Order: sequence, then structure tokens, then C-alpha cells
Amino acid sequence: MAKASDKPVKKVVLAYSGGLDTSIILKWLQTEYGAEVVTFTADLGQGEELAPAREKALKMGIKPENIFIDDLREEFVRDFVFPMFRANAQYEGDYLLGTSIARPLISKRQIEIAKQVGADAVCHGATGKGNDQVRFELGYYALEPDIRVIAPWREWEFRSREALLDFAEKNQIPIAKDKRGEAPFSVDANLLHSSSEGKVLEDPAVEAPEFVHQRTISPEDAPDKATVITIGFEKGDAVSIDGVAMSPATILTKLNELGHDNGIGRLDLVENRYVGMKSRGVYETPGGTILIAAHRGIESITLDGGAMHLKDQLMPKYAELIYNGFWFSPEREMLQAAIDLSQEKVSGAVRVKLYKGNVSVIGRESPNSLYDQDLVTFEEGVQAYDHNDAGGFIKLNALRLRVLAKRDRKG
Amino acid sequence: MAKASDKPVKKVVLAYSGGLDTSIILKWLQTEYGAEVVTFTADLGQGEELAPAREKALKMGIKPENIFIDDLREEFVRDFVFPMFRANAQYEGDYLLGTSIARPLISKRQIEIAKQVGADAVCHGATGKGNDQVRFELGYYALEPDIRVIAPWREWEFRSREALLDFAEKNQIPIAKDKRGEAPFSVDANLLHSSSEGKVLEDPAVEAPEFVHQRTISPEDAPDKATVITIGFEKGDAVSIDGVAMSPATILTKLNELGHDNGIGRLDLVENRYVGMKSRGVYETPGGTILIAAHRGIESITLDGGAMHLKDQLMPKYAELIYNGFWFSPEREMLQAAIDLSQEKVSGAVRVKLYKGNVSVIGRESPNSLYDQDLVTFEEGVQAYDHNDAGGFIKLNALRLRVLAKRDRKG
Amino acid sequence: MAKASDKPVKKVVLAYSGGLDTSIILKWLQTEYGAEVVTFTADLGQGEELAPAREKALKMGIKPENIFIDDLREEFVRDFVFPMFRANAQYEGDYLLGTSIARPLISKRQIEIAKQVGADAVCHGATGKGNDQVRFELGYYALEPDIRVIAPWREWEFRSREALLDFAEKNQIPIAKDKRGEAPFSVDANLLHSSSEGKVLEDPAVEAPEFVHQRTISPEDAPDKATVITIGFEKGDAVSIDGVAMSPATILTKLNELGHDNGIGRLDLVENRYVGMKSRGVYETPGGTILIAAHRGIESITLDGGAMHLKDQLMPKYAELIYNGFWFSPEREMLQAAIDLSQEKVSGAVRVKLYKGNVSVIGRESPNSLYDQDLVTFEEGVQAYDHNDAGGFIKLNALRLRVLAKRDRKG
Amino acid sequence: MAKASDKPVKKVVLAYSGGLDTSIILKWLQTEYGAEVVTFTADLGQGEELAPAREKALKMGIKPENIFIDDLREEFVRDFVFPMFRANAQYEGDYLLGTSIARPLISKRQIEIAKQVGADAVCHGATGKGNDQVRFELGYYALEPDIRVIAPWREWEFRSREALLDFAEKNQIPIAKDKRGEAPFSVDANLLHSSSEGKVLEDPAVEAPEFVHQRTISPEDAPDKATVITIGFEKGDAVSIDGVAMSPATILTKLNELGHDNGIGRLDLVENRYVGMKSRGVYETPGGTILIAAHRGIESITLDGGAMHLKDQLMPKYAELIYNGFWFSPEREMLQAAIDLSQEKVSGAVRVKLYKGNVSVIGRESPNSLYDQDLVTFEEGVQAYDHNDAGGFIKLNALRLRVLAKRDRKG
Repeated sequence: MAKASDKPVKKVVLAYSGGLDTSIILKWLQTEYGAEVVTFTADLGQGEELAPAREKALKMGIKPENIFIDDLREEFVRDFVFPMFRANAQYEGDYLLGTSIARPLISKRQIEIAKQVGADAVCHGATGKGNDQVRFELGYYALEPDIRVIAPWREWEFRSREALLDFAEKNQIPIAKDKRGEAPFSVDANLLHSSSEGKVLEDPAVEAPEFVHQRTISPEDAPDKATVITIGFEKGDAVSIDGVAMSPATILTKLNELGHDNGIGRLDLVENRYVGMKSRGVYETPGGTILIAAHRGIESITLDGGAMHLKDQLMPKYAELIYNGFWFSPEREMLQAAIDLSQEKVSGAVRVKLYKGNVSVIGRESPNSLYDQDLVTFEEGVQAYDHNDAGGFIKLNALRLRVLAKRDRKG
Repeated sequence: MAKASDKPVKKVVLAYSGGLDTSIILKWLQTEYGAEVVTFTADLGQGEELAPAREKALKMGIKPENIFIDDLREEFVRDFVFPMFRANAQYEGDYLLGTSIARPLISKRQIEIAKQVGADAVCHGATGKGNDQVRFELGYYALEPDIRVIAPWREWEFRSREALLDFAEKNQIPIAKDKRGEAPFSVDANLLHSSSEGKVLEDPAVEAPEFVHQRTISPEDAPDKATVITIGFEKGDAVSIDGVAMSPATILTKLNELGHDNGIGRLDLVENRYVGMKSRGVYETPGGTILIAAHRGIESITLDGGAMHLKDQLMPKYAELIYNGFWFSPEREMLQAAIDLSQEKVSGAVRVKLYKGNVSVIGRESPNSLYDQDLVTFEEGVQAYDHNDAGGFIKLNALRLRVLAKRDRKG
Repeated sequence: MAKASDKPVKKVVLAYSGGLDTSIILKWLQTEYGAEVVTFTADLGQGEELAPAREKALKMGIKPENIFIDDLREEFVRDFVFPMFRANAQYEGDYLLGTSIARPLISKRQIEIAKQVGADAVCHGATGKGNDQVRFELGYYALEPDIRVIAPWREWEFRSREALLDFAEKNQIPIAKDKRGEAPFSVDANLLHSSSEGKVLEDPAVEAPEFVHQRTISPEDAPDKATVITIGFEKGDAVSIDGVAMSPATILTKLNELGHDNGIGRLDLVENRYVGMKSRGVYETPGGTILIAAHRGIESITLDGGAMHLKDQLMPKYAELIYNGFWFSPEREMLQAAIDLSQEKVSGAVRVKLYKGNVSVIGRESPNSLYDQDLVTFEEGVQAYDHNDAGGFIKLNALRLRVLAKRDRKG
Repeated sequence: MAKASDKPVKKVVLAYSGGLDTSIILKWLQTEYGAEVVTFTADLGQGEELAPAREKALKMGIKPENIFIDDLREEFVRDFVFPMFRANAQYEGDYLLGTSIARPLISKRQIEIAKQVGADAVCHGATGKGNDQVRFELGYYALEPDIRVIAPWREWEFRSREALLDFAEKNQIPIAKDKRGEAPFSVDANLLHSSSEGKVLEDPAVEAPEFVHQRTISPEDAPDKATVITIGFEKGDAVSIDGVAMSPATILTKLNELGHDNGIGRLDLVENRYVGMKSRGVYETPGGTILIAAHRGIESITLDGGAMHLKDQLMPKYAELIYNGFWFSPEREMLQAAIDLSQEKVSGAVRVKLYKGNVSVIGRESPNSLYDQDLVTFEEGVQAYDHNDAGGFIKLNALRLRVLAKRDRKG
């Protein structure tokens, strides 16, 4: 019986960074699959020039009409980062999901391009031991169930970095001098965060060296004077800094600068990968770390206790779904519907103090405040709070405990 | 029909701090109820001398055998604080429950004393608008369902602070000079934390003044040089600092000092009270803030992902139960059983860096590590990880999403 | 300080059934409060004539313009019962919440009328030991926070049924002969269910007598031949029986008849009331029992597994919220948003067999089926299912368990 | 690098039923792997003689010391079925997990035997599309992380039933006449249930034919007279019927007879498999269906509301874990610890009426009842329930909703 993977691939959309690894993949797709390659390079705020990616693609024989370069920063923040922050999502208590949340957008764009150019396959450069392969591929399949997925790292015959580089050399793929030796750690970056892992970070008992950090100066190096800013929110999303309205990507960029300068958002974490192993990463999420604190701050005065507690109970599941790659799943969308509904009144302003790694909410105000004194003090005639009510409240809450105690005393 | 509250109270155990308010209550119990008063004063690490409480009680006519003064610090940390930290409990995302966790122990001791001395009532000094009345009374009722509970703040006729002080004066209760005017905020403290609320803190838009802080210097005032310590854990509980074994209360005391000196553990929060209103508090939990970070650190290498995610999903409910006063409830005990089981192997050491308000886990190691390289690399012959497995893993995880996509495409 | 309850009530909207108890309340409001009474009588499908309620109200001096009689059956089923059934809500595993779900609608209408007629108070006839007082009043307050609530059973001086009846007699309220003695149990009914409790049902060890049942014949008395019907669904709601389109209330009425005739929907339950005590009730929910089985049936082929499992995990909380009276709460609305989103494709037809108390789903089909063979067998070239994938799927799912086992073996 | 699967297998423990399929596997292991085969045949109450399995094994050349035949019925019910029923576990609302719960015990015994005989591999006969392969293998790996697992249905070259039978014939494996054609459906059975699936059941729109049922007569064929029994419980487990103490397996056997005779426990379900597809099965769980109803009955009077609601919220996750094969996982054990703690007082007797498919709880009593009148009516002097308390209870529960309503009215 012929397997799907026996069928020839005609055209494949490759998530292409322009770097060495995806260049090798590009060539491998051409030589091994004999496929026409379409490159897709996205600006998600990773901080790299995109122009070289076009040049390199052209050099490797990609037709101009097969080169896609998109600035997705606004879409990324507006449709992925912000919805996630409405949920206060933190994986395993701490991780702000910076890598996880970027993958579904890349998958989505690759599938869109595949449909546009009539490609029958998509390809990514994630390795076979990590979470990203899962995230990319669940995204592909959820959006185009019949797509052929090529995952070179799980398929090709290269058994060592050396073999890979030999292939590159043989195929005239330029190798930067410093790449011949292996990098001391690997990096993923986008507008929300940068993550570092591997090599020098592999022993979780050993402190991460200062040089792995990309996005933040250390708290020690940050200014001795605090910076205070005011973040404006509309329906759960940040919309302004110090009264200046900004687009989603602009706000996150600005918060990243502020976070960077104040040594904010470093996290050294051992986490549980979906594929079953523990790994250690160093994450830097400067703007996101400010944002989640501020978001919790504005929620604290605008969100009812019942809604907040439900959100808190749903959050770990929501974060797990995103971490595991299930952004495009009915259950994530259900949770999002619940979360989004809760944010209707989450508007106002939060003052945040940034100081040497600390983010402290020091003030919050909102036209929708549930704390407001005028609200708490009800109109005359209908007393808002009678001390005596507390007695009854306690008595009935205690009733079942008392019945229990009497029962258990008998035993 | 005679109500319970119509029956005379013969002997009442009062949670007595020795301060002005509980002294007024003491006198009020004597005059209003004509009851024999038993005072109970506990050292929970609030940082006050207990000797004066005895003296004052004697002066107010309490018989020596009716004065109970207990050092409960070890019991507090061992049986209340530590079990709660095993759960990584944080109410509404941030609050470490410092006040909430102390109440059940006080309730428990009061009921024990009531049984010992044959008292028919207990009394506390919590006001009628707060959570503490609920916590005290749920504790009382859960442990002694037939106990009579006296809550002076909900019962007495005093309608102003002035009236209260007049009563004090009339009854020769000494009033410290600075008490004639009202304090600018009120404080609760124990070994885990101190909380401040009211008056100068009432407007959540206004930054908390520096002078409300009791337990910590500000990050700005903290040393310019980081302090690094190693915390040892056994079955989820801290047992040593820098290799020196310590009792639970000693460890927390030591961590409090370290936290204090490094400006760690301040939290300015607007929270949802169980009685239905929002309130604003400033919490300082220096040692606890270090402890929860370190505990998550040791869990990160010793706790399986499935266990950790279940814990994370149960935590908000667990924290809510403690906040609301349901420590002595079957559901809290059920959750505790699940949590405690998960901690069997949570032993090892965590290195933590303390610097100007920051607590950073920078290293963790454990004989029970699930990260350990020797574990991850399985014995020869049974390969731990085959890249090809990931393909199947993804394919089956994707299957339902593909079926969905095909279905939805039809529609 | 004047309490709210000291202010005179000018006009009060009473939930008025026309029966003895609410007639007594009506009179008591007139005499005790000196208030103008507005009566509100709703047809929720309880199976009683409403005309007599008008007559009685007139006789008791209610002005014609103060008498409100509404047929709310369609609104009840469409906006309350059906949304709840989308969630498959069952309280404590079994109870279909027939009483609970009717209360918010009554509260809502009372508040609407109060606004319309300028009333300053509302009043209900629920007793002080039950859940209904909570449900009514939480509804009132959520919709009109300043409303004055009168709960006669908690307020008046009558300490016995005898005293109540004396008051009725003295005030010329006609008492049906059989009411002089106490009923052997009390009943609540609406289009969804009827519940019986009290007296003959008080000992949970004793079987409920046959005569308490109002809505169903016993399975023993039901026909020896099964009835098979087909229920059509659109977006999670029943829309037709045997191909005949019907309105929500008509469908439920028809299912009630079918359930009644086949002895379906009886439940004898000891449940936990929100006010802290256990109570025993006999519920009959003939149509609802058919409906929930059929709804689960249509979901089984149209709802994705991830969505279904999330729904199942949210359901107990959702059911508890409705039982406790929190229909008009942000958290119920959040859960509803998640649930409703999941129902977009829950359309199709379910064949159900009704036989002597049994409801059995025996067939389901849908244009949106996720089971459909054509869907499961993917197009050629992209194999839907490769046995080998299962190996990888299992291996990665097992990985953390293997690491654990290796770790624990060491210990 | 040599893969694990390249190493020769020396000795393999096969889960062997003695039937055609596992006999083919046995031969295939001998011929294909050249391995010494150890057969393990368990009596889990599937209702088949075990003696023939020994005979057949001997005939196929298995050494007597390599034949293991165990009666595991008591262990099965005591250590697997009963703990699961303490949780009231139902997968996707209905399924009592009859197949799922048997797999971990088989895995456990196979691993024990493997250790005893020094085998380096285990083998099962589950197919590559189902859940059972996952359950078996997760069990193997959790208990012996280095074990080699052989899954013939995923490995061998047979691409049709025909090819399989040819192999059997060629190897002198006797084929029962009726096996040459394919069975109209496949069956799995143990003491808890029997399940049927495939072929005649594949179209979920078509009613399951009567002949697929193995364990129950139809409700239509059941007696016209109800059977009433009393089931005794100790700490959540059934211990007696009608006052006669019985072992776990004996009780379940007896309940199965009672269920069988009264047409109880049939379920026709479309469910979501862990491997991502929907499947349709017909389950018969006669005794289990009685047991879960009775267990909920005894819980209804002995379990506190808080504990019950927590159990209900944990249950779907617990059921999913068992369904997916994670019995031997930390998270299942954590949930079990919570559940088991809740069952300490779940003792007493439940009267259950069995009639033509219906199981109705008609009475419950317990020395630990929380319903007991003497408990509910508190001693004089401490009133158990004051109507006025309800007012305060409602007021404080309503407070946040009122504040919300006031806020939202402004907007």
C-alpha cells in the first residue's frame, strides 16, 4: 500500500528565516524532494533584517513570486498576544508563553500562502525533540487537514551537526565562521520574548551566564532610579502609555524598551515539554512582564470576584493548551469566549513602577471601577452593608461544617 | 421562643492581644455579658512581647488560671504555613494568604482552651466587614459545633471610635496617647506576613506611602549587592538554609530577615473579600516570597509534569478555600491529601538570588531529579527518545483537529 | 441610624400564585406594610389556570392595572431551559435543576414590572430554610441593586401553620377544606419539572409513596411497548419531533407527555442545599430527562472530544451556580459563552426509545457528523491513520512515566 | 546507532487469551522474533474457561513453567473497580470504563511475571487503532521503564484478515469454523462489563441489534415485577447485599446477575478515543450500573456538600485519565488520594429497586448520616437554623452582584 509520504511533493511552503539551518532545509527540499520551494519569512519582531532573507532565497534559485516576506507584528500582538494576556496566561506558574504564541500565526500564514500558490506541502525547521514541531504541525492540520507536512529534522539522514555542515558546504551554502563550531546556546525571538536554551544552560544547577540574555540588561545594571508609567486599557487590552494611544505592536515595543532598560522580565525555568521531557530555558519577556502585572492591576478594580476566580481556575488549562500547540482548537476558543466576555469592562489606567527588575502596580483607576466609594456606599434607604448580615452569612456557611462536626464526634 | 443568644454566657475564651481593642472587648464581656473571661494570647511571630498581655489581663481582673499565653510559632509554620506552601497557594494570582492562614490556628487553640476550662463561648475582635470574622467563626464551628460565638463588633452599641474610647476611659482602660486620634492604617502581623489597610490606603489610585511598610525596607534602600542562599527541601518543606538545618519557624524567621534586608515581598493589592466587597491592602511577606519561588524551583526538577499541572489547576480553588476560611473543611483536606502525595519526592536544594526586591532561582539540584541526564538517557537497548515517535505523537494529536477541519469546511 | 427596613414601602410587586399562601402574604403586605400591592402571576407551565388568580386579586382589592398575568412559557424554555440543557447541567450528578432554572425568570419579570409601575419593593413567598429565597433575591439584586426585598417567611410573626390560617380566616381569605390540615408534602411545578418535598418524604430511608408523583405514571404502569421518536436539533437546541418543527415550549410540552406516558424522569434525591443542610426531594422531569439524553446523543457525533471534555469539566460548576441562584452572574455568563460557542455545529437528529422509565439513544445522524466515514477516511495521498503513528504517540505519552519510574526505582 | 528494536528479544510475556488471535501472535513471536514465549492468562471474570488456554499453550510448545494462569477477579474488583467507583467515574457522561479499568491490572501482572521469569519484553494483542494499546503500554512503561514492548498489530506484515488466517493455517493453529468468515462485531469482557464494537455497529444511526448483547436481557424481556435489594457500604465500597457480607468480586458477580435479569446496564455510545477518532460501542455493565447508583445514594446522606461538589468537579478529569490509560500516573494517584479521603464515612445501606432497565434508589440509611434529624436539630441553646440568618447570607452573597449592577447601569 502506498503511503502518503511516498507521493512526490510538487510545491512546498517553507518557514524560512534566511539563516543557515533553514537554508540547508531549502536546499534539501530541492534536492531530496525535487520540489518547488516557496519561502515565507515573517517579521514577528525578532529584531532581524528581512531583506537578506529575500536575497539569499533568490540566490538559492527561488523565483521572486515564490518569496513571501510579511510584517506580521501588528497581527501577532493584536490577535495572539493580547487575547492570551486577557487570560493572564502563565504556564507552570511562570512562563509567559512567548514562543508558544508565535507558532500558530506562522502556521496560519504558511497555510494561507500554500492555498494562494497551490502548494501541496508545508515545511518547518523545528527539531524532533521540542514543542515547536507540535505547535507548527497542529496548526497546519487544524487549518488544512490534507496538507502534507515535511519535518526535515525528523526525516533526513544527517546524524550530526558535522554532516549537516558538510551538506551545506557541498551545496555552496555560505557558513558564517562562527557557525562551524556550535553555538553555546540556541535562541528564539519575537516581539514578545526571546528564549535561550541548550549547551551552557543544560545543567539546571548552574546559573545562567549573563551573556545568554538578549533582551534585558541585568537588574544590577539598571538605573538606580525608578521609572513610573501609566498604561491605559480598553476591554482588557493595553491601548496607551502615559496617555499616548498606540497600536498593539507599538505598545509592546515600547514596553519592551522600558523593560529592557529596567532589567525586567528574566526567567530561568525548568519546564515540562509536551513531548514528555523536562528542559531548561532562559526567557526574557520585558514588555510582557510589565503587561501582565498591569493587566492584573486593572482587573483588580474592574473585574467582579466571581469572574476573576473563574478566570483563575481556567487559566492553567488555557496556558497548557497554548503551550501544547492547541491554539486552533475548539476548547481554546471556548475558553477564549469566556475570557473575552469577562473583559468588557476591563478599561482604565494602571500606574506601574519599574525598578531594577521589579514591576510594581502602585495605582489603578477606572470609570468602571467596582471599588469606587460611591458605588460601595449604596443610596440611602437601601443599606449596602449591615454588620448583622455577616452573622447570618457566617452561620449558614458554617451549617454544614457544624453538622459534619456533630456527626464525626459520634464516630 | 428563646433564642440561643438569650442564654447567659458563663465563661468565654477571648482571643486577646493585650491591645486597646481587645482590652475594651474584655471589659465589655465582663460588664455586658457578666461572663468569666479567659484570655488567650498567642505568639504567632507578630513581633510583640507577650508579657504585657498577661499583666494587663491580671489588672483587668482575669484570674491567673484563666490566662493562656502560647508560643505557637512552630505549630503555625509546620502545620499551617508549610502545607499551604506545598500548594503554591496564591489568592487572586498574587496574595500569599498571610492573614488567612493564621486564623484557623487561633480558632483551634481557642476551642481547645474552651474545652479545657469548660467555657461555653469564644470571642474574637475581628470587625463586621472583613474576612477574619468568617475565618475565626468557621473554625470555631467546625471544631465545636455547639459553641457560642461572640462577635463584639457586630453586637455592641458603639457607633463610633469616639464612643468606644469613651467606654475605655470610663472603665479605666489605658489609652496610648497616639490612639486617641485614629491610626492612619491598621495592621495585622504574624510570622508569615504583615498586612496594612484602611485610611491612607483607601484610594487604590494613590501609591501606598513608604511608612506603611513594617517588614521590609524598600528595594531602593536594599544593598547594591545580591545575596545568594541555598534552601534545602524535604518532601516539599524547607528544612535548611545554606546547609544548616533549622526548624520550620526558624527557617521562616531567617528568610524574613533576608527578605527584609533585600526589599523582598511587598504587594499592593486590590482584592475581593469573601463578604462581597473589594478592599485594598499592602502586604509584606518577605520570607514567604522567597519560599514560594524556591519551592517552585525544587518542584520544577522533582515533580512530574502531570502532577504539576494538576496542582496548578487545583491551586486557585485551594487558595480560595483558605482565603474564605474553610481550612477545616473536607474539601480543603481532600485537596491537601492530593497535594501532599505529590510532595513525596520534592526534596533537594535550590539556589536563590536576592537582590533589591527580586527573588531569582538560579540553580536547583536533587537526588530525585527528573531532569538528571543519566535518567533522560535511557539504558542502551531501550532508546529513550526516537525522533520518529514525535511524528506519530503529532499525527494522533492532530487527528481530531483534522476531522473537525474537514467537517467545518463542508459547512 | 435609620435602617433601610425602617423606611415605609409604597408599592410592592408580589409573585402571586393565587393560592392560599401568597394570598395571605398579599393581605399581610397590605395590613403590615400598608403598601399598594401589585400582583404578578406567571404561566411557566405549572399546569394551573391563571384566571382565578386575577379574580382573587381583584377580590382582595388589587386594582386591575396592578394585576400582571404573563404567559412566559416560551421565554422560559427558550432563554433559560435550553441554554442550561446545552450544558448538560446536572446538580450533584442527577438533578436537572427544574426549580432552580425557573426562579431567575420570575425575578427578572418582577423587576421589570417594578420599574414599569414604579414599585419600590418586591416580595416572594419562599420560606426561610430553602434555596428559592436565595435564587429570587440574588436575581432581584443583580437586576436592580437598590430594590427593597420583602421575604414574609423570614419576617412575620406567625410561628405556626395554625397562626397563619387564623390570620387568613380573620381576613376573609378562603381556605380550601383540605388545607386546614397540612398537606402531606409540598409541590413546585413548571414546564420543566415538578418537585415534591416535606412530610411523607422526610425520612430518606423510606420509599416515596406513589401518590407524590404528579407528572409521570410509574414505569410499572407504562405501556409494554416502546415508543420511538426522533428529536431534531439546531445548534444544541431541540427544534422538532419526528420531523415536525415546534417552538421551544411546544417541544418540551410534547416531550413531557411522552415522558409521562412512559414513566420517565422520576428522581428520588437527597441533595445539599446552598443554605447548608441536606434535604430530600422527589423530582419528575419527564421531558427534560428525554432531552438531556438526546442532547448528549447529538453531541456525541457533532462535538469534538476536546470541546466535550472541557464542557464536562465545566458542567458541575455551571450546575452549582444555577442551583445556588447565580444565573445573573458574570461567571455563569462566561461559562455560557463557552458552552454556546461549542454548540454551533450541534445539529442533527437523534432517535430515542422510550420504554417503562428508560430513555435509550438508539441512533444519531447529522450533516455535521464528526463520525462520518467519508471524513474519517482521508483523501488518498494523505493517510488519515497510520498504525505506526500510534507507536510514537504512546512512546511520547509514556516518556514522563518512564523517567518517573527510573527515578523512583532509585529511591 | 542501533535502535532498541534491532536487538533480539530473548523472552517475552504475552497476554494470552487462548483464542485465535493471541495464538497467532504466540506463533508469530516464536517464528518472527525467535523468542521464548511466556503466556499469561488472567481470569478477570470474562466468563471463559482458562483450562483450554493452558492446553493450547502446551500444544504450541510453551514450557509448563512458562504458562501463567491467574484468577485476578478479587484483585481486579478490590484494587481497580472499587477505587474507580468511589469517584463515580463516568467517561463522557455515561461510560463506566469497563474495558479501561482492566488494562492496568493486566499490564501490572505481565510486568511482575516478566521480572519473575527474567523476560526482556512484553506483548499484547490490542490493535493499532484503539485505546487499549495505549493503556497496556503506558502501564508497562510506568512499571518497568526499560521493558521492550511488542505490539504485533502495529508491526506485522499481515494486511488482511485473510493473510492472518493463512498464517494460522500454515502453522497448524486450529481455526474455529465460524472464524473463517469475520465476526459481525468484536467483544471485550470482564467482571465489570462487556463491550461490543465494529461491523454491525459501525453506523451510529442504526440501532444496535439485539444479538450483540452478551450480559443482559433486554428490558422488554425482564420480569414484570421489580426486585428490591439492599446494598451495604463501608468507606465507599460495597460490602454486602441484603445483609450478607461478600467479597468484592462476589458482590460484583451477584450484582451482575441481578442486573442481567432485570435488563440493566446497556449503553449505546459514540465516544471519543484517545487516539483521536470517534467510535461507537455497545456496553453492558449490569452490576456496575447498579453500583454507581447505590454509591451515589449512600454518598448523598454521608458526604458533605463541599466534598461532593469537589468530587464532581474532579471526576471528569479522573475518568479521562483512566480512559486514556494513565492509571499508573502521579495525577491519578493524587486524585485518588483526595477521593479516598472523602470516603472515610461513606458507610451504610442503600435500598435499590431494579425493574426493566431501571435502577432507582428508594431508601438510604447510615450511622454516619448527615441528614439525621437529631443532628440537624441542634441542642437547645445553640439554634441550628435561624431564618434571619438567611437574610444576611443572601445579602452578602448579593453584595458583589449589586455593586456590579450599579457599575453597569452607569455605563
